[in-house]
Amino acid sequence: MQKAITEQGAFQDAFKAKLNQVDIGLNQSIEVPLPQDGGGGYTHEKHKRNYQQMYDTGIIYQLTGDKKYAEYVKNMLLQYAALYPELPVHPKRKNSNAGKLFWQGLNEAVWLVHTIQAYDFIYPALTQTERNTIESGAIIPVALFLSEQSPHTFNKVHNHGTWATAAVGMTGYVLNKPLWVERALYDLDLAKKGGFMRQLDELFSPDGYYNEGPYYQRYALMPFVTFAKAIEQNEPQRKIFEYRDGIILKAINTTAALSYNKLLFPLNDAIKSKGIDTIELVNGVAIAYGLNADPTLLDIAKQQNTILLTGDGLKVAQGLDQQLQQPFAFNSELYRDGKQGAEGALVVMRNGKPTDQALVYKATAQGLGHGHFDKLTWQFYDQGNEIVSDYGAARFLNIEAKSGGGYLPENTSWAKQTIAHNTLVVDETSHFNGKVKQANKHHPTIHFYDQQQNLTLASASIDSAYDDVAFKRTFALVNIPQREAVIVVDILSATSSQSHQYDLPVHYQGQLIDTNFDREASLTQLSTLGSDNGYQHLWLLATANLSQDQPRDSLARVTWLNDNGRFYSHSTLVSTNTGKHQQMLFTQLGANDPNMNLRQQTAFIYRVEASDHTFVSVLEPHGEYNPAKEFTIGATSNIAALTHHQQAELSAVHIRFKDGEQYLLAINHHEQALTEQNQSVININGVQYPFNGRAQLLGPLNTGSFN
Amino acid sequence: MQKAITEQGAFQDAFKAKLNQVDIGLNQSIEVPLPQDGGGGYTHEKHKRNYQQMYDTGIIYQLTGDKKYAEYVKNMLLQYAALYPELPVHPKRKNSNAGKLFWQGLNEAVWLVHTIQAYDFIYPALTQTERNTIESGAIIPVALFLSEQSPHTFNKVHNHGTWATAAVGMTGYVLNKPLWVERALYDLDLAKKGGFMRQLDELFSPDGYYNEGPYYQRYALMPFVTFAKAIEQNEPQRKIFEYRDGIILKAINTTAALSYNKLLFPLNDAIKSKGIDTIELVNGVAIAYGLNADPTLLDIAKQQNTILLTGDGLKVAQGLDQQLQQPFAFNSELYRDGKQGAEGALVVMRNGKPTDQALVYKATAQGLGHGHFDKLTWQFYDQGNEIVSDYGAARFLNIEAKSGGGYLPENTSWAKQTIAHNTLVVDETSHFNGKVKQANKHHPTIHFYDQQQNLTLASASIDSAYDDVAFKRTFALVNIPQREAVIVVDILSATSSQSHQYDLPVHYQGQLIDTNFDREASLTQLSTLGSDNGYQHLWLLATANLSQDQPRDSLARVTWLNDNGRFYSHSTLVSTNTGKHQQMLFTQLGANDPNMNLRQQTAFIYRVEASDHTFVSVLEPHGEYNPAKEFTIGATSNIAALTHHQQAELSAVHIRFKDGEQYLLAINHHEQALTEQNQSVININGVQYPFNGRAQLLGPLNTGSFN
Repeated sequence: MQKAITEQGAFQDAFKAKLNQVDIGLNQSIEVPLPQDGGGGYTHEKHKRNYQQMYDTGIIYQLTGDKKYAEYVKNMLLQYAALYPELPVHPKRKNSNAGKLFWQGLNEAVWLVHTIQAYDFIYPALTQTERNTIESGAIIPVALFLSEQSPHTFNKVHNHGTWATAAVGMTGYVLNKPLWVERALYDLDLAKKGGFMRQLDELFSPDGYYNEGPYYQRYALMPFVTFAKAIEQNEPQRKIFEYRDGIILKAINTTAALSYNKLLFPLNDAIKSKGIDTIELVNGVAIAYGLNADPTLLDIAKQQNTILLTGDGLKVAQGLDQQLQQPFAFNSELYRDGKQGAEGALVVMRNGKPTDQALVYKATAQGLGHGHFDKLTWQFYDQGNEIVSDYGAARFLNIEAKSGGGYLPENTSWAKQTIAHNTLVVDETSHFNGKVKQANKHHPTIHFYDQQQNLTLASASIDSAYDDVAFKRTFALVNIPQREAVIVVDILSATSSQSHQYDLPVHYQGQLIDTNFDREASLTQLSTLGSDNGYQHLWLLATANLSQDQPRDSLARVTWLNDNGRFYSHSTLVSTNTGKHQQMLFTQLGANDPNMNLRQQTAFIYRVEASDHTFVSVLEPHGEYNPAKEFTIGATSNIAALTHHQQAELSAVHIRFKDGEQYLLAINHHEQALTEQNQSVININGVQYPFNGRAQLLGPLNTGSFN
Repeated sequence: MQKAITEQGAFQDAFKAKLNQVDIGLNQSIEVPLPQDGGGGYTHEKHKRNYQQMYDTGIIYQLTGDKKYAEYVKNMLLQYAALYPELPVHPKRKNSNAGKLFWQGLNEAVWLVHTIQAYDFIYPALTQTERNTIESGAIIPVALFLSEQSPHTFNKVHNHGTWATAAVGMTGYVLNKPLWVERALYDLDLAKKGGFMRQLDELFSPDGYYNEGPYYQRYALMPFVTFAKAIEQNEPQRKIFEYRDGIILKAINTTAALSYNKLLFPLNDAIKSKGIDTIELVNGVAIAYGLNADPTLLDIAKQQNTILLTGDGLKVAQGLDQQLQQPFAFNSELYRDGKQGAEGALVVMRNGKPTDQALVYKATAQGLGHGHFDKLTWQFYDQGNEIVSDYGAARFLNIEAKSGGGYLPENTSWAKQTIAHNTLVVDETSHFNGKVKQANKHHPTIHFYDQQQNLTLASASIDSAYDDVAFKRTFALVNIPQREAVIVVDILSATSSQSHQYDLPVHYQGQLIDTNFDREASLTQLSTLGSDNGYQHLWLLATANLSQDQPRDSLARVTWLNDNGRFYSHSTLVSTNTGKHQQMLFTQLGANDPNMNLRQQTAFIYRVEASDHTFVSVLEPHGEYNPAKEFTIGATSNIAALTHHQQAELSAVHIRFKDGEQYLLAINHHEQALTEQNQSVININGVQYPFNGRAQLLGPLNTGSFN
C-alpha cells in the first residue's frame, strides 16, 4: 500500500483525497465534549465524527508513517481516556440499550469498532505508558461496558448484538485478550446461545437474506464483515469466510443484488435514497473481492466510486485500474427467508440489463419490528425508475424538526400498514391486525418459483394474515420477443366463508393519463377514504363504479406516464355477471398529516365485495413520451382482452392484443416440483392446449381458436 | 464532408448512426397517406416522418453519392406530386391558417422547409422530366399555397409567417425564382410591411429575446437560422448575419443562455422538459459556430450531443474532436423585451457555475397568446434543480388522451393565471383580469439593473396590471463570501387607494420540513381555496394566522427540503403593530381537475389585507440532507431577524444571522443611472451608513450598532 500511494491510479487518488481531508482535520482543535444530545444533536454528531476522524487519521499514519497523524489520534484517545471513566449513562437514553458517549449502546459499539482499529494503526507510535492510559481509560471500560455490563444486548441475536460482539472481539485481538474473542464468538458464558457465530447462524437465511430487508441488511453487514475480516487475519484457521457455506460472502452478494439502478429495494422500514454506494457495502464488496477476486464485484465497486485505503481497497483499485470488471449478475432469483430458509422468500424477477424490468415479489416473513404488514406485495421497476412502488419508511433521517430525525408517527400509521403496499387489504384492516407479535409467528408458503428464458413465475399464499380470509398470489414476468413486449401477469385469489370488502391497491408512480371507464372525481371537496389502518391518510380523489357495461371489454384499464418517458397500463379483469359490487378508487396520500410529513403519492384501488374473488391483472409498459424531441408513440395499451381459466390445479390467462394476436399463459400449480417432462393439458372452449413443465407461454395462437 | 466520413471522429460517428437509421427506412415501403388526422394522429405523424426521412436520406445521398438514396427520395416526392394537386384543405383544420397535408399551414411550411432541401440534395440525380413532375406536382403548389393563397399568414410578423417565408424563400433559391425570394424577404407586395426582414426587425428584442419566451424562441429560431443560412450561401452580399447588429446570432446565444442545467427556463406556455438539446438549437448553434467559431458554443454543442451532417456540423464535430470548447458564459444578464427593447425585460441573475444559483425575474411584456399573467414573477434554481418554480404549460405534447395532445383546459384555467406564479395577486383576480388583449398593451417599467461581483439587483414595477393597485418589486441575489452563503432578497411594495387582499405565493419544490409558526391543517376534509382565476384548482391544506406574537422574531419562516439534498428557508417579514390581517396559506394543486391533468404541486401564500403593503422576504439555501451517507447538517435557517427601512428613494434590508453577524443591503432607487461615484447615506436608528452606487452589502456590521 505504501508503494501504491506513490503510483498513479485509483488508490493514489483515494489516498490523496483522504489525506487532504485528514490534513484539514489536523488543523482543527480536538474536542471531546461531555455527552449531552440525542441522535442528530451536536455532541452525538461530534463523537461520531471523532471516531471517523481517528480511523481516517490512523490509516493515513499507517500509509505515510508521518508521526503527526499518530500524535493527533493519540491526543484524541487520551481525551477519551480522561473523559470516559467519569461518565454516567447518557442523559438522553431512551431504551434498554443505553450508551454513555451516545444515547444508544449501539453507537458506543460502532465507536469502539472504529476506535480499536485507529488504536491498532498507531499502536507502534505509542509509549507503553500512553498505551496503558488509553487502554485503561477508554478502550477497556468501553469494551466492558458493551460486554459484561450490557449482557442482554451483547448476547442478543440481533444486529445490535453483532456490533457489540464485533467491537469486543476486535478489541480482544488488539489487546491480546483471547477470552474476549471467545466471548464475542460464543456469548459471555461461552454457551453458544448468543455471540457472533450464533448470529451468523440465525440472522441470515441460507441465501444470505436478512430478515429485516436490504436497508437493514446493509447496516447489519458492517460488523459482520469487519469482525470476520479481523478473525481471518488473526486466526485464519477458523475459516470464518467458509462458515455456513460462505454465508458472509452470500450476504454481501445478496445485498448488492437487492438493488435497482443503484438503490436498494425499499422493503420494510427503508429510506429510499440508500443505495449500493453505502459505506457498509463498499466495505463488504472490498473484503469479498479481497477474498475471491470476483470480477463482477468490481462492477459494483465501480458504481460505488469509493476506494478504501486498506489492502482489500488496494486490490479493488488495481482491479478497476486494469478494467477487470465484468457485469454483476442481476438475475432473477428466489431468496429464501428464515434461518433455515423455510419462512417464505423474496422473489426478484429481472429481465435483461440492470435497468430493464424488475419485479420484486415479497413473500417473506415479517422482518421483526421493522417489518411492514405487506404479505405478498410487489414492486415494479423499469427503465431506471420505480413504476409500482412501495412507500418505504416515513422518516427524515437526522432532521431534528421531523420527530428528531427518527421514525415519524406516520411510519406506524401509514408506512407499515397494508394499504400503503400493493397487496390485498380485507375490510380496511391490516394484515395480522397490525400486530407485530402475531405477524412474527407466521409467514407465507412458497408454492413454486420457476425461471425460464422468457418467463419467470412465482406463487405464494398466506392464510394467517386474516382470521377467515386466505389469499394466494402468482406473478409472472413474461417476455414476448415476437412483440418486443414485456408484461407482468398477476393472479390473486382471495377466499373466505363470508363476504368481505377486498381492496387491491396499485401505488403508481407518474401522471395519470386515462382510464377506459368513467371516473366521478371529487372536484371541490375531498374526504378521507377511511378512518384507520392507514386509510385515514388517503384523500379520495375519484370513484368509478364498474358495472357490467363499463368498462368496455370487461377490462378496467388505468394508464399512467412515468418520468422515464414510458407509459404503463394496468388492466384488471372485471367480473361481469357476478353481481359483485366492484369499484375503482383513486386516492392521494396526505390526509391527517398535520406536519406535512408524508409524500404526495397516488394510487388506484380495485375494490370488490365478495367472499371469493380472483383478481387478474396485467401490467404493460408501452410507448414513449419524448417532448424534447417532440414525439409520442404508443400512448395506448396494446391489450384488448383478458380471460382467466381455472381447471383444478391448472390455470391460464388468455391475452388478446389489439392487433388480434393471442397468447395463453398456462400454469400448473401442482405442489410438487415439475420438470420439462411434465406435460399438462388445459382445455379451453373445447380446444386442448398442451404445455410442459410449470408454465408456458403459448402463442401466437391460431386466431379465432377461441374468444 | 465526404472525406470526414472516412475519418474517425464525431462526424463519422454521426454519419454512421444516421446511415444506419436511413438504411432501415429504405427497407420500408413508402407511404404518402391521404391527410386525415390532426396533431398526433397517424397521417399527421406519417407526413412529419416523411419530410424528416426525405431530408435525412437526401443528406446521406449527398455524402455517399449512392443512387439508391436519391431514388428513395425521388419516389416519395413523386408520390407527393401525385397526391398534392388533388388535395382540398385539411378536414381537421381548426384555425384560419389551415393546411392541406396537415391541419395547420404551419406544418405545411415546415414540410416544405425540409422537403426543398431534400430536393436540392438529390437534384443532380433527377432527369428533367422528373424535376418537372416533382416541381409542378408538389413543390410549386405547396409554395403557392403558403404564399399567394395564404397571404394573411405569409405576410404576418409572427413565427408562422417566418416558417412560411423561409419555406417559400428557400424554394425560390432552389427553383431559381428570385421573385419568390424577394417576396419572402419583403412580403407578397414587396411592401416591407411583412416578410422575413420585417420579422427580423420585430420578433426579437435588440438583446435577442423573443417575446413569447425561450420555449417558443427555440421553435421560432429554426426558420430564422435555416433561411438565413440559405441567404448567406446564395447571396452573401446581403450580409444577413450582420443585419440588425447580428440579431440572428444574438437570438441563438440568448436561447442557449436562457436555460438552467440544460433545460430552458419555463416562461409562459412552455413544456418543461424542453432543453438546449432541442434540434432547433442544435441547428442554431452549428450555424453560429460555422460563422464565428466561438469556442463557448462548443460547450453547448457538447451538451447537445448531436452532430449535424452539414458543413457547419462538420466544423462543430472537428471542434469537439479537438476539444476546443470553452465554458459557455452563463452570466447575469438583462434581456430587454420589445422590438425596440423598451417593453420590460427578463433579468437572469447567476452565481458562478452553471448549476449554482440562478434567479429569473420576469418583468417582460405579455408575450402574446402564449403569455402568462405573471408580471414581476420569479423562479429560483440551485444545485441543478428548480427550487421556486413556475408551472409552465398544462399540456402533454401529442398525447391523444390529453385533449388531443394540445393545450389542456387547465392551461387557461390554471397555468396562465397569476396565482400559478410567484407574484402578487390582488383580490383573487389575475393581472389584466386575464385578458390577453389588455395585457398586450402594457408592460412593466424597468427601474434599474445592476451587476457587481457579489451582488446583482434589478427593480421593476407595473401599475396597469390592476385598476387601482400598482406594485414594484426589487430582487437582489447576494453572495456573502465571508459566510459562504448566498441569499435572495425580495422587496415587493403594493400601493392602492383602497384596501385589498394581497396574495404572494411561493410555489416551492420539495418537502415541507417546518415553519416557525403554528399551522392549522385540514385533516379530514379539503376545500378549494377559491372559485375562479386558478384558485378553484387549489386545495387548502393548512392556514396560519400570523398575529403579533406569532411567528417569533416577526419573521414567518417556511423551510423545505429539495430533492437536491439542500434545505431552503423562505423568511418573510411580518408586519407587527399594523393591525393588518395576515395569514399564511398552504395549498396543493389538483382541485376541479376531473381528468387529473394537473401535477400535484405545493405552495404557500402570504396573504395580507391592506391598501399599502411591502413584502420583504429572504430566501436562503442551507445545509445538506444526505441519507445515503447518513448525515444531515444545517437543517435550520441561519437568519435570526430582518428589518426593512425606507427613506425617500433609499432603502435598506437589515439582516441579522443567528450567530450575531449583521449585514445591511442598502439600495438607492433613484431613477437615473448611478455609478460608483454616487454616494448615498442611509440613517438607521441614528447611525449613518454611507454606500456607493446603486447598492451595496455592508457588513459584517459592528454588532450592537443597532437592532
